[in-house]
Amino acid sequence: MQARQPIALIGSGTIGRGWAIVFARAGHRVALFDKEPRALDEAMGLIESSLRDLSAFALLDEAPSAVLARIRLARDPGDAVAGAVHVQESVAETVEVKRAVFAELDRLAAPDALLASSSSAIVASRFTEGLEGRGRCLIAHPAAPPFLVPIVEIVPAPWTDPGAVESARALMERAGQTPIVVKREIEGFVFNRLQGALLREAYCLIRDGYATAEDIDRAVVAGPGRRWAITGPFENADLNYRGGVREHATRMGPAYARMGAERGQDDPWTDELVAGVEAERHALLPRGDWAERVAWRDRRLMALAALWRRDSD
Amino acid sequence: MQARQPIALIGSGTIGRGWAIVFARAGHRVALFDKEPRALDEAMGLIESSLRDLSAFALLDEAPSAVLARIRLARDPGDAVAGAVHVQESVAETVEVKRAVFAELDRLAAPDALLASSSSAIVASRFTEGLEGRGRCLIAHPAAPPFLVPIVEIVPAPWTDPGAVESARALMERAGQTPIVVKREIEGFVFNRLQGALLREAYCLIRDGYATAEDIDRAVVAGPGRRWAITGPFENADLNYRGGVREHATRMGPAYARMGAERGQDDPWTDELVAGVEAERHALLPRGDWAERVAWRDRRLMALAALWRRDSD
Repeated sequence: MQARQPIALIGSGTIGRGWAIVFARAGHRVALFDKEPRALDEAMGLIESSLRDLSAFALLDEAPSAVLARIRLARDPGDAVAGAVHVQESVAETVEVKRAVFAELDRLAAPDALLASSSSAIVASRFTEGLEGRGRCLIAHPAAPPFLVPIVEIVPAPWTDPGAVESARALMERAGQTPIVVKREIEGFVFNRLQGALLREAYCLIRDGYATAEDIDRAVVAGPGRRWAITGPFENADLNYRGGVREHATRMGPAYARMGAERGQDDPWTDELVAGVEAERHALLPRGDWAERVAWRDRRLMALAALWRRDSD
Repeated sequence: MQARQPIALIGSGTIGRGWAIVFARAGHRVALFDKEPRALDEAMGLIESSLRDLSAFALLDEAPSAVLARIRLARDPGDAVAGAVHVQESVAETVEVKRAVFAELDRLAAPDALLASSSSAIVASRFTEGLEGRGRCLIAHPAAPPFLVPIVEIVPAPWTDPGAVESARALMERAGQTPIVVKREIEGFVFNRLQGALLREAYCLIRDGYATAEDIDRAVVAGPGRRWAITGPFENADLNYRGGVREHATRMGPAYARMGAERGQDDPWTDELVAGVEAERHALLPRGDWAERVAWRDRRLMALAALWRRDSD
């Protein structure tokens, strides 16, 4: 494994420990700090346990001990960020806490180090505005646990340097994650906005007596969740109709608009909006490749069905 | 394979052919009819091809030819429903077409046969009201393709016999599907209401310039989609917080409510609503089993990560 540049992690909860695995697995030296000594004491044992599990599933290219050897506990934030090219904050999800931590990190970290927050909904402009180094601050929001669910949302503040965005994106991609760049700030970014929309509808269905939480969970796992593990909502619509997303919008759009109106929503899928998505999908999947891609999706669904079938035996 | 009762399928498109595989795989004799002779001519070849794929993934317990031998083409609707205990309609998604087909099926089918529609959003009361046998009519909505994505939403009309609901549910479960019973009629049922809510938010994010369709798809596949293939939205919230769905609602609820308000939605997660979901989750997952279930979820995520890793090699 080629040695990669040092990373500093501030916060050793589930997310901080998960980042330690992501970066150490990819060859980075990692320094981990937490202001709670007890959390930090526990961290190495928990990380080692996860590394053993990953190894059992053939998800590590080397021994767990080799990965673990790249992770060290830092005695204070200054020790953690010493020499780091990227500092990833994963502390409590409040503006006040993040503001204090970022002020400290901006003082302590080398001037060219990136400062990234694991914030799951708060935008960076709410806690970085007054910092001298605000141009190097951004959101890099992972899912839990980040070493198994690879999405990372990179979200710049209005003053974030474009170079910092690209550096963070490239770092995450080299580390085996799946970064997307959200073009401008919005509370909840993409992932939690989509989760939130689904959850709000789910709570309405329970409140109004249509289904139980258990049935909703079963419906998602045995239904759209299985497809969304393979193709996202737009590719899914594109593959389910020969006429692609346009046919999907024509056939299902009016019903979806009525369902939205019941919840107060009026965001029409205009011809222009659908045409834009259609153009993007056609560029990604030329129509001549459609049947082959449907067959690919079905083979992945089969592999998934076979996996669950084996596991339940 | 124990021989099971005959099933009639009306419509031999993707969904009708999918049902043929579901029921024949489970040991039912299946009669398949389509008013388009060409569609029917193609059907057996397409079904055979899917059966061979399933066999290659070890998803059949017998030879494809043995499953195929239980499927016959019917020459007309009367021939299809002769002797059938369950008739599954999978024709075009318009009220007029479904009304005409159900009127015919109600005349032709044996009086104790169930009449189920694969409708993906239209409720059964809109096309069964005037029928003598309206008490045996209901929705049994599958996902595409039903032999790989096992959800089936059973949705009764106000006049559907409770016994018919239970018969349909039990039939689907014996056939290896995952049925849920939606307690009363609502356009889009559960599955498409959840899909629709997510899609509406996704289209807003594109319209307002936050993300491309490609990035949204990548975010879902590498993020929540991977988790939703294993645990539904409520179990996911329950497992991501030590304090379960209540802690999730406390921490994320206010942000989700603000995101909803931006779309015109005002459906608060009241204490009472969250308490009901919490009680249901606690009954399903006693708190003493929480850590073990989190570990189970993570092992499934590892199995999934290992599967995708092998497939991309």
